[in-house]
Amino acid sequence: MNADVQDCILLFGDSLTQGGWEPHDVYARKLDVINRGLSGYNTEWSIPVFEQFFAKSKIQETLPKVQLMTIWFGANDACLKPSPQHVPLPTFSANLSKLINFVKSPSSPYYCSSTRVILITPPPVNTLQRGSLLAARDPPRVLDRDFDVTQQYAEAVKEVGKKEGVPVVDIWTSIWEAAGKVEKDLSKYLNDGLHLNADGYAAPIQFVYDGLIEAIKESYPEIHHEALEFVFPRWDEVANSEDQLKSLTKKNALTGK
Amino acid sequence: MNADVQDCILLFGDSLTQGGWEPHDVYARKLDVINRGLSGYNTEWSIPVFEQFFAKSKIQETLPKVQLMTIWFGANDACLKPSPQHVPLPTFSANLSKLINFVKSPSSPYYCSSTRVILITPPPVNTLQRGSLLAARDPPRVLDRDFDVTQQYAEAVKEVGKKEGVPVVDIWTSIWEAAGKVEKDLSKYLNDGLHLNADGYAAPIQFVYDGLIEAIKESYPEIHHEALEFVFPRWDEVANSEDQLKSLTKKNALTGK
Repeated sequence: MNADVQDCILLFGDSLTQGGWEPHDVYARKLDVINRGLSGYNTEWSIPVFEQFFAKSKIQETLPKVQLMTIWFGANDACLKPSPQHVPLPTFSANLSKLINFVKSPSSPYYCSSTRVILITPPPVNTLQRGSLLAARDPPRVLDRDFDVTQQYAEAVKEVGKKEGVPVVDIWTSIWEAAGKVEKDLSKYLNDGLHLNADGYAAPIQFVYDGLIEAIKESYPEIHHEALEFVFPRWDEVANSEDQLKSLTKKNALTGK
Repeated sequence: MNADVQDCILLFGDSLTQGGWEPHDVYARKLDVINRGLSGYNTEWSIPVFEQFFAKSKIQETLPKVQLMTIWFGANDACLKPSPQHVPLPTFSANLSKLINFVKSPSSPYYCSSTRVILITPPPVNTLQRGSLLAARDPPRVLDRDFDVTQQYAEAVKEVGKKEGVPVVDIWTSIWEAAGKVEKDLSKYLNDGLHLNADGYAAPIQFVYDGLIEAIKESYPEIHHEALEFVFPRWDEVANSEDQLKSLTKKNALTGK
């Protein structure tokens, strides 16, 4: 495809991102949505991955621009030692800052002036549900996550957001409050104590989606879907145009020109 | 993003494509799926659009490769005169051939040796359902599509596929047979007489999805999702690797190298 036709929203994270919760419909014909969710990954592993998929500044001009990058890690960093997924809390915070500054710091080789960033907190863990699922495995496994520890990682995301001036979608709090702050009632929202249910009324996926759209509206209104133009016009605009071919000229979704 | 990280599947078509039916899950971390569905568009309008979004051969090297392009038009071309969406049958066939040869003919400026093509037929029209919906509009509208005419456009897609040596997913026949070849029973599959229901048991979206995966398996087995590697490894491969950083080196999804 041609580089300058449609810019994109880049979703970067772990299985929660890979599982899909993508605002495809509202951004159709405006921005592409690219999923870079890597199940099981922590921020430590995310850094060399980022360095291989995000274009360096000098070649960005020939590629679709990333207008927004969501960063959603923490669920695996918060694994308890000796899990190989565990990343210590201070390192987790430093890694998030590093990911943000890859695109926001003018001295970074990946600096991209068009890339806005939104952080997302990991969801709460239902250790009752996850504990019994892990115990039922063959061989049985001990609990690899802790409610309070994951909460600390969620808090750390909010602190990094404040420090770096980046908006945060606090899905931890949305889901915890929806469950009435009762751990066992998280089972309504988490299908295995860890991952978000995609189906059903008030599905937590909807919290993430709504939270993201709201954060965009508040912090980056210029890329809210309603503020963007179609890259190619509505069919009735083509049909009613005196010069149909000319009417089919692509536009920039942000400027409409 | 970096050009060479993840190639893509490009879905090109009208509202049926824009509505979304995307094999994201099975191609996650292997190929990106890019939607270029343009509601209401016919093949006549699709040509200048293609010329603006598909990279010319000389710059393809710097961009993600299109490994597969689906072409799904006809539902609007088959509109009855004087609809501005109407495209005469011979022109429709010629336009489909033109789209195919944009990428397959070595003399085309858009020639791309990696781009495989799959055609999809338009679904049957339920004129009983669509007719009453249009009559109920304010002001009322006359029926703009005809069962037999759309069937001819579906047949034409199959003929173009044969002529050009391109596989065809015949969704027209799948849905018609599923409805027991009774027009009124198409209402199980079409929510307005024209567009496919996305929900429910044996949803027609599933026919398209299954038909596409089957066509890939039969004609292009090298890009069937099960034949592709993850671009970045599974997390447990990273965790168990002696050199984690080295294990995180991206691979080509098709070659695994």
